[in-house]
Amino acid sequence: MSGPAPRSRIPVAPADPRDLPGDFAHRREIDVRFADTDAMGHVNNAVYLTYCEAARISYWTDVTGEPVRLGTEGAESLILAEARITYRAPAFHGETVTVETRSTRLRRSSFTLEHRLTARVAPGPSRLVATSESILVRYDYTADAPVAISAAHRAAIEAFEGRDLGAGAE
Amino acid sequence: MSGPAPRSRIPVAPADPRDLPGDFAHRREIDVRFADTDAMGHVNNAVYLTYCEAARISYWTDVTGEPVRLGTEGAESLILAEARITYRAPAFHGETVTVETRSTRLRRSSFTLEHRLTARVAPGPSRLVATSESILVRYDYTADAPVAISAAHRAAIEAFEGRDLGAGAE
Amino acid sequence: MSGPAPRSRIPVAPADPRDLPGDFAHRREIDVRFADTDAMGHVNNAVYLTYCEAARISYWTDVTGEPVRLGTEGAESLILAEARITYRAPAFHGETVTVETRSTRLRRSSFTLEHRLTARVAPGPSRLVATSESILVRYDYTADAPVAISAAHRAAIEAFEGRDLGAGAE
Amino acid sequence: MSGPAPRSRIPVAPADPRDLPGDFAHRREIDVRFADTDAMGHVNNAVYLTYCEAARISYWTDVTGEPVRLGTEGAESLILAEARITYRAPAFHGETVTVETRSTRLRRSSFTLEHRLTARVAPGPSRLVATSESILVRYDYTADAPVAISAAHRAAIEAFEGRDLGAGAE
Repeated sequence: MSGPAPRSRIPVAPADPRDLPGDFAHRREIDVRFADTDAMGHVNNAVYLTYCEAARISYWTDVTGEPVRLGTEGAESLILAEARITYRAPAFHGETVTVETRSTRLRRSSFTLEHRLTARVAPGPSRLVATSESILVRYDYTADAPVAISAAHRAAIEAFEGRDLGAGAE
Repeated sequence: MSGPAPRSRIPVAPADPRDLPGDFAHRREIDVRFADTDAMGHVNNAVYLTYCEAARISYWTDVTGEPVRLGTEGAESLILAEARITYRAPAFHGETVTVETRSTRLRRSSFTLEHRLTARVAPGPSRLVATSESILVRYDYTADAPVAISAAHRAAIEAFEGRDLGAGAE
Repeated sequence: MSGPAPRSRIPVAPADPRDLPGDFAHRREIDVRFADTDAMGHVNNAVYLTYCEAARISYWTDVTGEPVRLGTEGAESLILAEARITYRAPAFHGETVTVETRSTRLRRSSFTLEHRLTARVAPGPSRLVATSESILVRYDYTADAPVAISAAHRAAIEAFEGRDLGAGAE
Repeated sequence: MSGPAPRSRIPVAPADPRDLPGDFAHRREIDVRFADTDAMGHVNNAVYLTYCEAARISYWTDVTGEPVRLGTEGAESLILAEARITYRAPAFHGETVTVETRSTRLRRSSFTLEHRLTARVAPGPSRLVATSESILVRYDYTADAPVAISAAHRAAIEAFEGRDLGAGAE
């Protein structure tokens, strides 16, 4: 990319001290499906990770131009090493969830993404529904081991984020 | 609505004699999620019913203006009595599935929807991936029994479809 | 196998004229997960196909001894060509669903399975929740075409079912 | 319960320094469904939270005898406030996942569960596939606010765990 992405920060009310401060480099909208709900009447807790997965794949593709790799044919890929999610409010069928994503740490073979999930019935106001953090590892399925994130990918992430992510240390 | 909906007929190649002929009153686009796939590498068979469910809810809301009812608080609702699905080709993560839907039979308390599912990587060409049929029953959860589809809903469906659906006989 | 499988026929009340008559060669129990439910409070319609999928895979493995094949590495596999499902009653979290399965038609490269789904809170009585029919096709991913079901697999199915399935004609 | 539950500690190989040490009060086995997998060939990351959800519900029911509450009819219930999951190895269709669970912190209106997930093809050896932590909050839907975990529930948890969980402080 020739410059950093436009920044995203969806306003929500009410304010929540546990909201992630600051803005985000990436935004992905997701339609809540009826099948995403459970008998509590709202989106099932596990499905939030599916929303983050969609955002993560979209982020990586948008940042690096690398197409999604499927299967384990000896190629390098990304694997999810750790996920953390904090639930703030339920999301409902009929709403659109927006996942805002940014890279916060870039290490030798891994990086961390932060996600902020908001929901709304367009064109209404948004509510904060969850925040999440994912640690992704660049993995070589042939060697069955983590590998260094390439210099090109590092540069693409930092350009997309518009800042130095202190890359390098494991 | 003041008139019938615009008609939809997404062209596909190659021709398939088992494709549903004719056009459709309703169209709903769905993003294939990575979590929709299974270890065969493509969208899991059961997920096609989730796509049809999204199309069905969207059809009903668009046709009648009735908001989606959740739970069983004594209200009338629609229940799925029967579903049939014929698989034509796999759909993949990264594709958009379009579900085209039309009503074909309107009875006293039930009606039949036909769905045609096509997939593509926009802006590329579309493939036929499945056809499906759903029978929906108007149900009163208070009485725990099927009830007649109201005259207003019948009129809305026929107006949306732009033709007489020979309504009335059970 | 040296002889036909024990026959299964789970009694249900009340009687339903649309219940599949007769007994079944195969039985598979499935725990209903909370995530299987939706905002209607019971198991989502699409999930019934997931239950049938589990029963189908289990049936094929039990009948033929062939391990489940994953991916598309040029091997023969089974693909689902058509599924039909008739919903009779809701199933709930906390219940066990039993899927009874039998082969009813055996053709050159395809066969038909019938499924009967009942639910209960063990050790209580069972209710009929759905009946379903699946058409499976034996497929060669290398040739990208259907292939004949082998004589050994035909014999295994008929031995398991304990009757002649009039195999051969497509 | 009259005494603490039998302790569980499924042996795994190889040793992993990030494995949760010690034993667990509760164990829940889960069949991996084919629909749980994704195009990577193994269980989708989000589905691990579904496994933890099943374990969590089972733990609460086993410990307190309280039936699962569904819906939001003004009753007290448990809500998931936070989930963390560390992925160690893929799990596959055809395997059984065992989720071992224990309470580690008991506060005024919340408690923490640790989960250890292992997978195996019975009767083969087990592999560590993930560890997870969940924070559950006792919630009153009428008041729309957290409420104190009752003395009876506290006592039941501590009896089940067979140790003092330093309950009380928020």
